Order: sequence, then C-alpha cells, then structure tokens
Amino acid sequence: MPTPHVVIIGGGFAGLAAARTLANEPVRVTLIDRRNHHLFQPLLYQVATAALAPSDIAEPLRGVLGHARNVEVRLGEVTGIDVDTRTVSVGDGDTMTYDHLIVAAGARTSWFGHADWEARAPGLKTLGDALDIRHRMLRAFEQAEWTEDEAERARLLTFVVVGGGPTGVEMAGALREIAFRTLAGDFRHVRPEAARVVLVEAGPHVLAPLPAPLRDAARRFLEELGVEVRTGTAVKAVEDGRVVLADETIAADTVIWAAGVQPSPLGSMLGAAVDRRGRVVVEADGSLADHPEVFVTGDMAHHAHDDPDQPLPGVAPVALAMGQHAARCILHDLAGRPRRPLRYLDKGNLATIGRQRAVADIAGVRLSGLIAWLAWVFVHLMTLVGHRNRVVVFTKWAWAWATWERSSRLLWRDEAARDEAQREARLRA
Amino acid sequence: MPTPHVVIIGGGFAGLAAARTLANEPVRVTLIDRRNHHLFQPLLYQVATAALAPSDIAEPLRGVLGHARNVEVRLGEVTGIDVDTRTVSVGDGDTMTYDHLIVAAGARTSWFGHADWEARAPGLKTLGDALDIRHRMLRAFEQAEWTEDEAERARLLTFVVVGGGPTGVEMAGALREIAFRTLAGDFRHVRPEAARVVLVEAGPHVLAPLPAPLRDAARRFLEELGVEVRTGTAVKAVEDGRVVLADETIAADTVIWAAGVQPSPLGSMLGAAVDRRGRVVVEADGSLADHPEVFVTGDMAHHAHDDPDQPLPGVAPVALAMGQHAARCILHDLAGRPRRPLRYLDKGNLATIGRQRAVADIAGVRLSGLIAWLAWVFVHLMTLVGHRNRVVVFTKWAWAWATWERSSRLLWRDEAARDEAQREARLRA
Repeated sequence: MPTPHVVIIGGGFAGLAAARTLANEPVRVTLIDRRNHHLFQPLLYQVATAALAPSDIAEPLRGVLGHARNVEVRLGEVTGIDVDTRTVSVGDGDTMTYDHLIVAAGARTSWFGHADWEARAPGLKTLGDALDIRHRMLRAFEQAEWTEDEAERARLLTFVVVGGGPTGVEMAGALREIAFRTLAGDFRHVRPEAARVVLVEAGPHVLAPLPAPLRDAARRFLEELGVEVRTGTAVKAVEDGRVVLADETIAADTVIWAAGVQPSPLGSMLGAAVDRRGRVVVEADGSLADHPEVFVTGDMAHHAHDDPDQPLPGVAPVALAMGQHAARCILHDLAGRPRRPLRYLDKGNLATIGRQRAVADIAGVRLSGLIAWLAWVFVHLMTLVGHRNRVVVFTKWAWAWATWERSSRLLWRDEAARDEAQREARLRA
Repeated sequence: MPTPHVVIIGGGFAGLAAARTLANEPVRVTLIDRRNHHLFQPLLYQVATAALAPSDIAEPLRGVLGHARNVEVRLGEVTGIDVDTRTVSVGDGDTMTYDHLIVAAGARTSWFGHADWEARAPGLKTLGDALDIRHRMLRAFEQAEWTEDEAERARLLTFVVVGGGPTGVEMAGALREIAFRTLAGDFRHVRPEAARVVLVEAGPHVLAPLPAPLRDAARRFLEELGVEVRTGTAVKAVEDGRVVLADETIAADTVIWAAGVQPSPLGSMLGAAVDRRGRVVVEADGSLADHPEVFVTGDMAHHAHDDPDQPLPGVAPVALAMGQHAARCILHDLAGRPRRPLRYLDKGNLATIGRQRAVADIAGVRLSGLIAWLAWVFVHLMTLVGHRNRVVVFTKWAWAWATWERSSRLLWRDEAARDEAQREARLRA
C-alpha cells in the first residue's frame, strides 16, 4: 500500500497543529498556504500599533516544519476542492489528490455586505491589514502636526474602532496609549494626548463572552485610559472621513473594523451543510458526515461540542485542538483504531487593555489588573511559535515597558508604492 | 533679532548629524524628509536577505530628535529651492523661508540611463528596495521547489549581483549563505545549495578602494563561499529573465543592481557648479561659493578636501562629518567667529563576506577574516541609531550566528497588494 497522502489547507493554528502532529508519522503530508508563514494573529494589533515588526509574529512554515521530513510545504492558493474525486486544485489548474484532507483556511474580515466600507475601515486579519492601519495612524499624526485648520486637526486625531471584542478593545487601548505617552514629546504643534479614541460596539457589552465583573473591569480600564466606549451603538455607515452612528456622526480620519469575521469561501466547495454564518457543520470528530476522510477545523468549522446553540468559538486554542484532533483521527484510522470525539477543555479568555492591565478568565479563575496582564504576557510569549521570536518579542516588550517607546514607527509604504509605480511606468515606456 | 531659521533637507547621516549638532542651540530648525525615519543604509542588505526587519535599521526622526525642543520635523517632499529668495517649497506649494540651508538629500540608484533595467534589476537604497529583493529571492526558491522543468529551476536558482562595491559583495555573500545553510533543510525537491550566485563587476577588482591584499582576500572569501566572481565584465543588457554580458548570457530570475548611484536631483536647483556625476561642488567649509548660507553635504556634495581629483567618498562617516561641520559653521557665524575648513580623517573601509569573515582597513591597519568581522560587528552596532535597535539587532545576530536561522523570511507583499486592489475595486464599484 502506498503511503497515504494527507493534504492540509492553511498554515494557521489548526493547520500547523495538524502538520506537527503528523510529523514523522507514516503519512505523506502536503501543507498548502497562500503565504509562506504562520501568523500569530492574537498579536497582530501590536504590529498595527507599531509595537512589533511583522517578522516578530510570523514564522516561516518551512522553518517550523523543516525537521518533519514527511511534510512538504506548498506556497499557493487553493482554487477548488472536489470531495468526490478527492482532488485539490492549486493556483492555475495544478491539481493533487489526497487520501485525507484537513481544511483549515480560517476566516477573514466581514463588513456584513457593505463592500464600500472596506476601503475606509480596514480590518485586522493579515500583516497587510496591520501595516495599512499603522500607516494610516502615523500619517494622521504627521498631517495633524502641519495643518492650520482646527476642525481638520480634530478629524485627523479622531480614531474610531468598531467592534468590542478582544481585537477592538486591545486596539483602542493601544491607540490611546500611543497618543498619550509614546508620541507626546515628539510633536510641537499638536498635543497628541488630545487624540480621541471611540470604541463602538453594537451589543450591550465589550468582551461579551466574559463574566460580568470582568466585562465591567475592562470597560473601566478603557475609560480610565480615556477611550470613549459606546455600547449598544450600531454603525449606520462609514463614509469618507466620517462614521455615522444612530445618534451622531463622528468626523474621523482613521476607522478600524474589528466587528466581524466570515469563514473562508473554501467551505462552500465541500457540499456540506453550513450554519447561518457560513461555517461548515462537522461531526463530533471534526469530519464531514458524508466524507469521513475530510476534516474541517478552526474558524471554518461549526462544532456543536456540548451545546448545539453554542458551537466552539473561533479562537486560537480551539483551532489548535481541532487541528491536532483531526490529525490524530487520521493516525487512528491508519492504525485500525476507532476515532474519538473531540473533547475541548475551555482554556478561558484573556484581553489586555493598555500597558499593564488586562482581564482574564482562566479555567474559572477570574483575574483583572496587573496580575491578569502578567498572565496575558506569559500565555502569549509561551504560545508564540519560534524561540527566536519569543526572545525578540520579550526584549521589545521589556524595552517598551521601561521606556514607553514603540519600536516600529515606520512610514514608508507610500514611497515604496511610488517607487514601484515609477519602475513599471519606465518599463512600459 | 528673531531666532535664525535653519532648514535641513534630508534625515540621513548628514542631515541627522546636523540636526543633532544644532539641538538646543539658539536657532530654530526644521528638518524635512520624505520618510518619517532615519535609515541605517549600511545594513539594508540584511533586510534584503531576511536577516533583519525594517524597523531594526530605521529609527523615527521624531523619536531621535524629540529631546531637541528647537527642532521640528516635517514629513514631506521638497519640490523646489530658490537660493535668491531663500525659500524651500514642500509638497503641493507650501513654502518656508530660511536663514541657513543644509541640503542633505543623499543619492539614489543609477542605472546609467537604462530606464528599462530598473524594474528588472532593483537597486538597494530604500526599505522598499530591500523588501522587493527579499520578496523576489524567497519567491524564486518557492517556485523552484514546485517546477518540473529543470532549465526553469536552474534559472530560478540563479542570482546575479551587479556591482562589486561593499553592497554587492555583502549581498552576494549573504545570498550564497542563505542558499547553502539557512534554507538547506527546508526544501524537498530542490537542493538550495545548488543556487548560483554571480557577482559581476565592470572594473578589475571587487572593493576597488581597498589595498590590494584586502581586495584579494575579499575575492578569496567570496569564492570560498561559492560566489562566481566576474571582474572586468560589463553588463550589456538586463532583459526579462536574463542578463547579457560581453561573452555570455546568464538566465537568472533575480538580478540585483548595486553598480552605481546618482545624487538627488535637488542639487540642480541650487544654481551651482556640479561635477560630471552631478554632485554639487562645495567650498572647503561645505558651503556654496556664491551662497555661504547654503551648505551641501553627504552624497550630494563634491568636496575636494586634499585632492581635487579624489573628492571625499559617498560613505556614511563622510556624510556624518559634513553634516556636523555645516551645523558648526552656522553656530560660528552666529557667534561672530570665523568658519573653518572641514578636516576629515579617513575612518577606513569595512566589508563583510558571509558569516564570520570580513576585510577592514581602519586608519591604515589592515585586517581580514574573523578579527575584521568582529570589528565590523562592533562598528555597525555602535553607529546604529537607537539603543533599542542595538539590543534587538545584537540579539538577532547572536541568534542567527548560533542557529543559522534568518528571522524575517516573510512573503506577503503580493497578498497585501492584492487585498488593497480588491478594496479599491469594491470602493469604485
């Protein structure tokens, strides 16, 4: 019998965990990703707010999996999946067949059908997004420094963050802190501490999944930092230079969209049932009902677990557990042993607000303030892939903590884009 | 008398040195730059070869000059200089007047009039250039891994570096090392150590300004690393996918242009004499003959110093000395003391070849091998702006030295560009 071929689509938490579980086992593995790196998305907001560099939170997949001689990495975009012929198409028509398939292509930002909001309010799911936001933020401060128009200056210094989940809360806190401390001494004409940060959340609470005392602590920490928290407020429209709410229009140069995600469209190619958010409904072991050789994991999956109305949430620990479990099921199959259902033990929730405050609900233990922040630092450093990244990130955090500096305040995207445009123009000429 | 206004154009080595010299002196200073950061260009090749992140070698100008309360930083592009009315135009028509002007806008890559070579053979002067080269290099390895065509694979794995100065030598050595060691275990189908690196130099020697024994050592180090060194060989043409030399055409996917620079076009707005390379001829104190209130410094200046045929070279220590000297002349003027001519003591030359070899000619002491490499590490760490950068770069170098890893092997530019294009398309729709 030839060695079974396992194809994994996506090198995020789920896909990478699956590949690592299958490393040096009696299978041939191909991991396909559009990017050459695993991205540690929980720290993406730190790249967006110039605290970390892209390479600090991204690790090349080939490097991570180099020791696994049975694993191949393929850079490419999956354009089709045929579960009947067990075929995956990559890029321009290249195809490969599989014996087992693990689909782990994650989620992307959702603007809830408002395509025109997308360019005005970038999401925060990729390194490109994070650099886009960093660029907008730094440029807004630079322009505010030199404008003579007071209303324009106020608009440039207003930042609206839409969405009160962990990403929105962490972004809002970091923005106030940058304005208040990091940039405070660097400008002559504007007082950066005058920057306004508005956090808009449609539901009644920020960090809704947390217990009430922690939600309230998070809100208090945000307000103490000077963030204007607007819960129960939906965004009606994002227009050029302003955000329209139910009862108010806010003139703002920078709008950040952290309000929703949608699963990868690859899920719709599997011919399986999806929930109303587009996630593929999977069995207790994570596979498809009609195709036990196909697993769907991470943010793409609707896994009922204990409660059909509360499927497992789209967070990194769940993705990691699902990826690992899918790989183990495949190994059980090959060994002739029965599969087991996925048992997920909730690892809890963490969110940081500013420099040394956080809220944490870890295995039922509720923490807030400095101790929660230390837990946050520990958990994130320990789960960051790559030993070098841990050392560099720890160094940068320690430095930033001691000095209030941010290490990556670079504005150069425009220049690079212009250089490239000039080169192309010359080549065509 | 109102406080005199000094305008400095450019935040490179010369401009930043001038601003620092004028910090908290009885003048008002405006430093104008197109970017918001000082870039440590001597280490740009390490960003291009994925050893360092952009933020490791760039430091925000506002941060560096934040303590200097008399210095303002302005992000913008200088579009005009009128030495008669003492006016500088910035961006779209905004103007400012000066009492003293220090022009320090540096140099850019020169393709010697071959505009069509530019898109095919990127230079290495900006962060955009470095990321462009990094992207081409990493993508070439990825494509080579999955092609079935042997000739195409050989082309993808051939890298041509044009120019045998320090940048070209350092790039060529780093490329071989990446192929030979860093990526060696990561690929399944190609042997990255099969990558060909060809260094093409039109003159008879690499590192021509160095004494003969050091030049020869550098060539030997390069050849021991497996770099094919072609001296006395001019490039006839750079075409799509190949480089045409006098006696040979090399099929190569990645071509890097390190063969020449030209001064910023701002020099031509000064109405002063220029040499045949476009550098502005300056007096012994660095000012213009007809306009003693205007100084031209760094790579833009032709300063005869001791020998009219051998003006001061376009290297970082010279730029730094010229910027400092111009600022001191202004302070002397204001104090009613006579200006002095610039006295530059040659600090020597350094170039590194691969992991622990270098050649160094420091104040007449000639070193090669490990001791020169240690000198190179020491000099570069000490002159890097920003204490945090020093710590991070030292950590990364130590890590890379111990593990052969490169920390910034990220391929994501395509994705970011595509995301942006999609956003714009949706916005227009």
